[in-house]
Amino acid sequence: MIEVVFLGFGNVNQHLCKAFLQCENVTVKQIFNRNFIKSEPPFENIPFVEKMTTIETADVYIIGIPDDAIADFSEKLPFQNKLVVHTSGGVHINTISEKNRRGVFYPLQTFSKQRQMDFKTVPICLEAEKDSDLKLLQQLAGYISNTVVEISSEKRAKLHLAAVFVNNFTNYLYRIGNEILAEENLPFNLLKPLILETSEKIQNLDPREAQTGPAARNDLKTIEKHLHLLTNGEHKKLYELFTNQLKSNDGKKL
Amino acid sequence: MIEVVFLGFGNVNQHLCKAFLQCENVTVKQIFNRNFIKSEPPFENIPFVEKMTTIETADVYIIGIPDDAIADFSEKLPFQNKLVVHTSGGVHINTISEKNRRGVFYPLQTFSKQRQMDFKTVPICLEAEKDSDLKLLQQLAGYISNTVVEISSEKRAKLHLAAVFVNNFTNYLYRIGNEILAEENLPFNLLKPLILETSEKIQNLDPREAQTGPAARNDLKTIEKHLHLLTNGEHKKLYELFTNQLKSNDGKKL
Repeated sequence: MIEVVFLGFGNVNQHLCKAFLQCENVTVKQIFNRNFIKSEPPFENIPFVEKMTTIETADVYIIGIPDDAIADFSEKLPFQNKLVVHTSGGVHINTISEKNRRGVFYPLQTFSKQRQMDFKTVPICLEAEKDSDLKLLQQLAGYISNTVVEISSEKRAKLHLAAVFVNNFTNYLYRIGNEILAEENLPFNLLKPLILETSEKIQNLDPREAQTGPAARNDLKTIEKHLHLLTNGEHKKLYELFTNQLKSNDGKKL
Repeated sequence: MIEVVFLGFGNVNQHLCKAFLQCENVTVKQIFNRNFIKSEPPFENIPFVEKMTTIETADVYIIGIPDDAIADFSEKLPFQNKLVVHTSGGVHINTISEKNRRGVFYPLQTFSKQRQMDFKTVPICLEAEKDSDLKLLQQLAGYISNTVVEISSEKRAKLHLAAVFVNNFTNYLYRIGNEILAEENLPFNLLKPLILETSEKIQNLDPREAQTGPAARNDLKTIEKHLHLLTNGEHKKLYELFTNQLKSNDGKKL
């Protein structure tokens, strides 16, 4: 049995907690949060504490708080030589105070309160200073996910950077699509099947092979027409930058 | 029974043809293509012709050829006063020669040879000069799709522009993600669940509500770290442009 205490209870820790509640080999012993959180299902049976001094002993402490707060927070923990991990993509393992055994437990996914998550498909990126701690984290992660990988802080930083491109920036492109349609009173629903297919296509196809569009085929007439249609200066800047990069990467070979 | 002849047999027309072959109320009477195409299943029983003069009479002629070729090609068709439609997002209905009754049958989706397509989910955007032709196209489209909409050439041009953002540019972001990981010898597979979830999230959530990331929360420390990590100048330019736009749109309110 692995005993876990959550330190902070934002989106990521809530989703992790839900997943652990499904595992018979994991006990969620406590949830610590500075501010009171209403104890709603499925968390209603987990002891909730607001004072650091009341945090109990556990095998793993999982910090889920804003990146900037991890250093100070971990320094203030009233125990030492325990396994303390954070869940952040962009934060170095050494950010955690060295008075405890440090580790990282980073689920590479975007979590929203509104959506259920099948954790089995979520890659969990692990790091630990000690081999025995890494083994424990591998065991813990293996209970909830089919993809568990050991990744150094340096590589994880690059992974997090790549995630910003495919998640945050992609979502911004969805917003632009939505805005262009809204100008014409067209429903965003029209684009949703295309958005889904675009993401599903590259599950089995290299995104370089999947590339299509006016820029990739150097269709200057359509590009000019689009630039003329774009009324929003910010959208236009992005259109131009993408098109230039696509043309210089793909246009030549077509 | 609606009789259809395909003029050109690229990706879009092949997928349309497959869909029509499943409909008992549609007959695919002929496939015309300038160059010989090997007649493979499921198309092996459809008469295939290479000479324009051998094109037979049908209720609808569906042009599926490159945008730039539509005007000339339709002018050369050896018949008149028939319903001739094209399947292109960015081409005005009037591009088709006026010697025939003109229309548009635009399935808003990205089609690849390698992937099966459930046409029921694909929005089909229609346009026709005559009401009776529009009704026929609505009937035809309704056999294969649950989403059939009438859209003018002007609005369709904007729709096509929006599609470039959410499909072509998004795919380019996937490529960047792939390249960043490749530099670290990390497998692209790690990003695939995130890519899927990002697209599934906005099926029920406004993309503005779904926006997360360092730029949206004005996390300058992470942004600076990412800019430092970016070794490719083109990736860096895109990162900066997205980040500036996200900061000016979202950063203020956080």
